Amino acid sequence: ILAAPAISTANSDVEKLTQNPANWATWGGNYAGTRYSELNEINVDNVKNLQPAWTFSTGVLRGHEGGPLAIDGVIYIHTPFPNTVFAIDQKTQAILWEFTPVQDADVTIPVMCCDTVNRGLAYGDGKIFLQQSNTVLTALDAKTGKRVWSVQNGDPKLGMTNTNAPLVVKDKVLTGISGGEFGVRGFMAAYDIKTGKLAWKGYSVGPDADTLIQPDKTTTWENGKVTPVGADSSVKTWKGDQWKIGGGTTWGWYSYDPKLNLVYYGSGNPSTWNPVQRPGDNKWSMSLWARDADTGAVKWVYQMTPHDEWDFDGINETPLIDQEVNGSMRKTIVHFDRNGFGYTLDRETGELLVAEKFDKSVNWASHVDMKTGRPQVVAKYSTEQNGEDVKSEDICPAALGSKNQQPVSYSPQTGLVYISGNHLCMNYEPFAVDYTAGQPYVGATLDMMPAGKDVLTGQPDGTTNLGQFTAWDSKTGKIAWSVKEPFSVWSGSVATAGGVVFYGTLEGYLKAVDAKTGKELYKFKTPSGIIGNVNTWSFEGKQYVGVLSGIGGWAGAVVATDGDKVIAAMQEKIAAETDSAKKVELEKALLMKTQEALGAAGAYASLGKLTKAGGVFSVFALPSN
Amino acid sequence: ILAAPAISTANSDVEKLTQNPANWATWGGNYAGTRYSELNEINVDNVKNLQPAWTFSTGVLRGHEGGPLAIDGVIYIHTPFPNTVFAIDQKTQAILWEFTPVQDADVTIPVMCCDTVNRGLAYGDGKIFLQQSNTVLTALDAKTGKRVWSVQNGDPKLGMTNTNAPLVVKDKVLTGISGGEFGVRGFMAAYDIKTGKLAWKGYSVGPDADTLIQPDKTTTWENGKVTPVGADSSVKTWKGDQWKIGGGTTWGWYSYDPKLNLVYYGSGNPSTWNPVQRPGDNKWSMSLWARDADTGAVKWVYQMTPHDEWDFDGINETPLIDQEVNGSMRKTIVHFDRNGFGYTLDRETGELLVAEKFDKSVNWASHVDMKTGRPQVVAKYSTEQNGEDVKSEDICPAALGSKNQQPVSYSPQTGLVYISGNHLCMNYEPFAVDYTAGQPYVGATLDMMPAGKDVLTGQPDGTTNLGQFTAWDSKTGKIAWSVKEPFSVWSGSVATAGGVVFYGTLEGYLKAVDAKTGKELYKFKTPSGIIGNVNTWSFEGKQYVGVLSGIGGWAGAVVATDGDKVIAAMQEKIAAETDSAKKVELEKALLMKTQEALGAAGAYASLGKLTKAGGVFSVFALPSN
Ligand SMILES: O=C(O)c1cc(C(=O)O)c2c(n1)C(=O)C(=O)c1cc(C(=O)O)[nH]c1-2
Ligand SMILES: O=C(O)c1cc(C(=O)O)c2c(n1)C(=O)C(=O)c1cc(C(=O)O)[nH]c1-2
Repeated sequence: ILAAPAISTANSDVEKLTQNPANWATWGGNYAGTRYSELNEINVDNVKNLQPAWTFSTGVLRGHEGGPLAIDGVIYIHTPFPNTVFAIDQKTQAILWEFTPVQDADVTIPVMCCDTVNRGLAYGDGKIFLQQSNTVLTALDAKTGKRVWSVQNGDPKLGMTNTNAPLVVKDKVLTGISGGEFGVRGFMAAYDIKTGKLAWKGYSVGPDADTLIQPDKTTTWENGKVTPVGADSSVKTWKGDQWKIGGGTTWGWYSYDPKLNLVYYGSGNPSTWNPVQRPGDNKWSMSLWARDADTGAVKWVYQMTPHDEWDFDGINETPLIDQEVNGSMRKTIVHFDRNGFGYTLDRETGELLVAEKFDKSVNWASHVDMKTGRPQVVAKYSTEQNGEDVKSEDICPAALGSKNQQPVSYSPQTGLVYISGNHLCMNYEPFAVDYTAGQPYVGATLDMMPAGKDVLTGQPDGTTNLGQFTAWDSKTGKIAWSVKEPFSVWSGSVATAGGVVFYGTLEGYLKAVDAKTGKELYKFKTPSGIIGNVNTWSFEGKQYVGVLSGIGGWAGAVVATDGDKVIAAMQEKIAAETDSAKKVELEKALLMKTQEALGAAGAYASLGKLTKAGGVFSVFALPSN
Repeated sequence: ILAAPAISTANSDVEKLTQNPANWATWGGNYAGTRYSELNEINVDNVKNLQPAWTFSTGVLRGHEGGPLAIDGVIYIHTPFPNTVFAIDQKTQAILWEFTPVQDADVTIPVMCCDTVNRGLAYGDGKIFLQQSNTVLTALDAKTGKRVWSVQNGDPKLGMTNTNAPLVVKDKVLTGISGGEFGVRGFMAAYDIKTGKLAWKGYSVGPDADTLIQPDKTTTWENGKVTPVGADSSVKTWKGDQWKIGGGTTWGWYSYDPKLNLVYYGSGNPSTWNPVQRPGDNKWSMSLWARDADTGAVKWVYQMTPHDEWDFDGINETPLIDQEVNGSMRKTIVHFDRNGFGYTLDRETGELLVAEKFDKSVNWASHVDMKTGRPQVVAKYSTEQNGEDVKSEDICPAALGSKNQQPVSYSPQTGLVYISGNHLCMNYEPFAVDYTAGQPYVGATLDMMPAGKDVLTGQPDGTTNLGQFTAWDSKTGKIAWSVKEPFSVWSGSVATAGGVVFYGTLEGYLKAVDAKTGKELYKFKTPSGIIGNVNTWSFEGKQYVGVLSGIGGWAGAVVATDGDKVIAAMQEKIAAETDSAKKVELEKALLMKTQEALGAAGAYASLGKLTKAGGVFSVFALPSN
């Protein structure tokens, strides 16, 4: 008999846990973040018989993002602010423990841009890691729920908050920061899992010493090859000190390659949303990053949207897929950006392999130049070229992107990536704005509308759907199939060895589709709109599928905060008004109201006729008999 | 072809609706309030296959009492304060309309004794009637949700609130009042369904002109016969003017006999809970009433608990059952009182036919004297005889009764009544209290504990269950069967022609049991604890079962308001305390905390380990395939 190794890092623990499909031990199901499960009890033939097994109300309203962790028979779920954590015994559904941190709502909630969401927990070293809204990162004993340590990751008084799920890598826990709409300078930070001590911190923008970019060693894609970035690669793309309030926040999902020991993620939009005010490429906002997990040193970085003019925040997740591209096996990283392009890069080197539109309605750029790696911006849709106080019209996608935070899944069975997508366009009017610490630093008004164009051709087709669920071949950059959804699909999907892909809808449906064809095989209306991720695991030999419902997030916040009712009342008033001058005034007020929630309120108000706020965890299984 | 009658009263409409089992058109399923459905698609054999069909979050936390109305394909549901009403299209589950009244939370919520509950809606004359918490009764157009009229039924500044479901009878809508813990004088009021104009108002206590008692005509059970009550039957049982703040509120459920044209209901406890302060029988608190629906004139009245010493509030529902008692067919009224006795009376005359304990742990009275109709109080448990500032111990039942507001169901198939029951005892210490308008006027501290006695024999058996679900033969006053529940059954049941009885539990289970035996046939864990009533209806030929979950009410309020967490933290602190003097102090503080929620906090705190707040409507059906 061999003794278990005396020293085992949390990393190897987590890896081992994720290798057992009975567990769902990281946000992505595995370090690669592919959200694929080897479980196949539920399959294309029997998924039609799926049914709710049990349900659990969290006692919190507002948007519930992220998903459950399932580890050794215990389910860990979390809520939006106030960020309660529940450990639930799978067998009895009793609450083993719960933890609610003390947080000052009045300080934190007003500086959360896009609802009071939280994208979930991380597990490692016998601890549950909770990234509180107020930026405090807390480690809890997974058995008891007692706090082990807490560390302050930022300052809400300066507009910093957190919404992301942390990631445990070896002896560290990684977390980012939110606040791109408040001029927060983004960073990735690594804390010691035992003590909470800061191990390293790499900013998205600023001097090389801050970004942990090594001018000679860190590479990027340029002139058709992998090239060292050189000195001051960030600072020199900013006017003066603007990088100090330059954004590039890091509120998305992180993945990790244990063999390469590299951590991957995307950085967000440059602050402000008014591009005229911040000349330059604004590097390294809007970029994909590969950092050494031990030191934070940057291996490579690639900017998708230089000098953003549309809030195409680049934080979307970065699943790691080994696949054959152009005839050779590559270790790739795949990324579906808000800007509407699906990217495939070599994750070791940052070599750009594929960059194609995953929604052909995208019109702000004609294509990505594969040599320079830069998008070719279409002048008509350039809010910079059109200038301040000019409304640029019918830009596709809208600011919330062809995809937002909702993570994709990947099935090695089909070789396809499953994209929860948005299908909207927008009008965008930048205006001059001054920076005040802790105050919104947005500088644009927006309104959004259905794309009304075919996702496969980009041709106008009179449709009004706001969502698409799309299967994508990341080897070739081609859409395999795409199904329409009335509203944005704001929920992360999961692909399984049963040949099924699950996702949730804003109306509240949990749906199962055939991974090969997209054919709908099952749906169930959960209590509230779904913006959470569907995860799957097994317990006592039986497969379960679980998802948090709870309408909210950027798209759903209008319902979670009753904005839809205000809009409906205003519309009624307008309809009843006979005085035409008064009617015009009321219409102006309505337009302003629909521009709330950073432009999303109008497009999603009709959701309020289909679902209401409420946080419920729903677990599904096949019937036993 | 015969033309439809030109004039049809709302009454006949409602009767017709309730006669079609596809609808569930009143709180009780029919005017008799028997909560029985002729539907039998779901039956004892197939109910094990039941599954959730769809779910709907109300967006409101706190306790969800009452149940859905289902009328012609539309589902009407309601919430606790702020009393939102939703009309939901059965086919699409879309919200046809919603209505939320404007109410001042700061004025109303503090004077609601037992959570911010609402027991549901009434339908009639094309209108939905909503009894708002702030006492405003509102009529809404059932098609559009627009307000037709509103009327102020009481004054929250004087401690008046409303929690009851109204009842439409002919051209009137009936409603009561809450506030027995604030010295409110109870009444039943009838408003014109077209205009909201007050038609009549009959108080529970006070001069005959106020109670609408006719001294010569109104009868009661006395000396073994039905006897006119005589003049001043209420006032002469009170000291001085105490009847003016005398309680007898009317916050329960009302039933109606169209042939006799009589409305039935119970009146609540006399105020204050300190019996020493208010000598006399305190008539007609704690009484069953039969009033003429047109005039409010009292046909008969029967007091169950003269001079209440335990808060055995008499408002529980009054189903009307035609059944053979002692060899002859009788039109009976059946009532399961908080005081633990199950009564059967002739509903035409008020003749007392049966009065037996439906839970043999009941010890405050040995029996009801069938001649006088009065309970024989056991001196040891008389809080009056023990006196002020003395703690009377181990009184059974506890103040929340052997049954509380949760309505029973009756199956003509089995001839049994199904009782959702509590199984607790209490310590009760009355103290002197002064009346101040709008302030609590309680005058007793309580703590509650499991009965620990057999429901069939009353013998101590070391059990800790707080609930029982009991089948009762109201012809003979005998328990047919009784099953234990860990917590009080605070949910109203429904019995069906499929031989099944459904009820909900405080942990959140919807349960189906065999009507003949009580055998559990199905359970499902809904999102939150259930204090709502289970209703059933059909749509497009398919039977549905629906229930609101949402922990709260008197028993569950401790969880809905996070009191369970405070108690858990205090218990931990005590366990960790080593200084014995400090320990004693902490234990005192804990006792005070557990006496909160009018004494219920301690007994139900452990519920917080099983369920959390949340308002969700869950609909169940058999699978289609
Ligand atoms: O720039 C930022 O720091 C930041 C933060 C967040 C966030 O933390 O939720 C969002 C966004 N930006 C954002 O642009 C965005 O579209 C968005 C959507 C959501 C959401 O959860 O629905 N959050 C955020
Ligand atoms: O005396 C009253 O006016 C009054 C009102 C109410 C109410 O309106 O909810 C309750 C009670 N009393 C009461 O005694 C009681 O046990 C009770 C339980 C509940 C509940 O909904 O769980 N309400 C009430």
